[in-house]
Amino acid sequence: MAVLTDKILVNTKGYTDIIDITNSVQTCVQKHNIKDGLVHVFVIGSTASVTTIEYEPGLLQDIKDALEIIAPSSKEYHHDAKWHDGNGFSHVRSALVGNSVVIPLSGGALQLGTWQQIILLDFDNRARARNIIVQVIS
Amino acid sequence: MAVLTDKILVNTKGYTDIIDITNSVQTCVQKHNIKDGLVHVFVIGSTASVTTIEYEPGLLQDIKDALEIIAPSSKEYHHDAKWHDGNGFSHVRSALVGNSVVIPLSGGALQLGTWQQIILLDFDNRARARNIIVQVIS
Amino acid sequence: MAVLTDKILVNTKGYTDIIDITNSVQTCVQKHNIKDGLVHVFVIGSTASVTTIEYEPGLLQDIKDALEIIAPSSKEYHHDAKWHDGNGFSHVRSALVGNSVVIPLSGGALQLGTWQQIILLDFDNRARARNIIVQVIS
Repeated sequence: MAVLTDKILVNTKGYTDIIDITNSVQTCVQKHNIKDGLVHVFVIGSTASVTTIEYEPGLLQDIKDALEIIAPSSKEYHHDAKWHDGNGFSHVRSALVGNSVVIPLSGGALQLGTWQQIILLDFDNRARARNIIVQVIS
Repeated sequence: MAVLTDKILVNTKGYTDIIDITNSVQTCVQKHNIKDGLVHVFVIGSTASVTTIEYEPGLLQDIKDALEIIAPSSKEYHHDAKWHDGNGFSHVRSALVGNSVVIPLSGGALQLGTWQQIILLDFDNRARARNIIVQVIS
Repeated sequence: MAVLTDKILVNTKGYTDIIDITNSVQTCVQKHNIKDGLVHVFVIGSTASVTTIEYEPGLLQDIKDALEIIAPSSKEYHHDAKWHDGNGFSHVRSALVGNSVVIPLSGGALQLGTWQQIILLDFDNRARARNIIVQVIS
């Protein structure tokens, strides 16, 4: 029984840039040769999130549209009135979508659906280098 | 120390069908006779979610109403324009609500509130057979 | 390898009271002297949530504003029509935001961003004493 931890660095464009990190996560997991357990994927920071979706261009636009309802990028935020960062919407989106997913691992494979990818969403209002932590618990 | 994994099959009607899976999860957990640790409940797929709620008919309607604000079922989605599945709203809801919950286990009991049940939400636009994975980490 | 569990009691004012629990979680973690693994922070109950955010007054107001879009506190809820609790919005918010976060632990430190705190959100419509469970998996 162990917790094995790896790190992935991902460069993003910000502005709700959505990046498929499934292959990178699988590469981390496979090198440990663990068959069964669970995998935790976490992005460090308060303006980014990790979740899963079917990674196709239509849905990437659809999820951006939904996030515009919840935390519009054009709204005036109290955060920005005070700090002038202009990324109040980024913080709110990250807090609501969350920083991590946990996925079962069986027979060495992540137990995702056929049309289900792990995505990093970078909500910040500038390009960022993001640290993703991948942990295998077995 | 171990990760013990079980699977539950749940038949749903789709269309944001909400099913109380608390008893099924408890049955999985209890057969291992583990007293302390944590439990991970995960639904496979990109059009379903797992969370917790007080399972009573009023709230089931209330959460459906809230999801209609975030990702209306009547809206035109880019996903559907391309793929004609008609389930763009299902994918967006699943990505935002998430596929799993983690719950502490103490003295053999899930540490839920008195009015708190584990629910499967099937957002797809058809009946589905869903695989729920239950993992006990101790 | 072990799962170590602690409990924190937090008194809240309800009404989307948002409390920074980062230091309390760190105190729990540090006493075990575990260097590497992961930490699970969970609030018991169906009208509260745990997530992370930059804890500054502007964003606390901004996230309350976003939650008013998703589950307005002034709306009439089916839950309240039946049970007259007046906290239908509290349940919906909790189900959508979630009860827990999982955070990597490396070199004895929670792997959070510089501007990222762990928060308890109490959505209920009255003051509550909340049980937070902190679990270190290593």
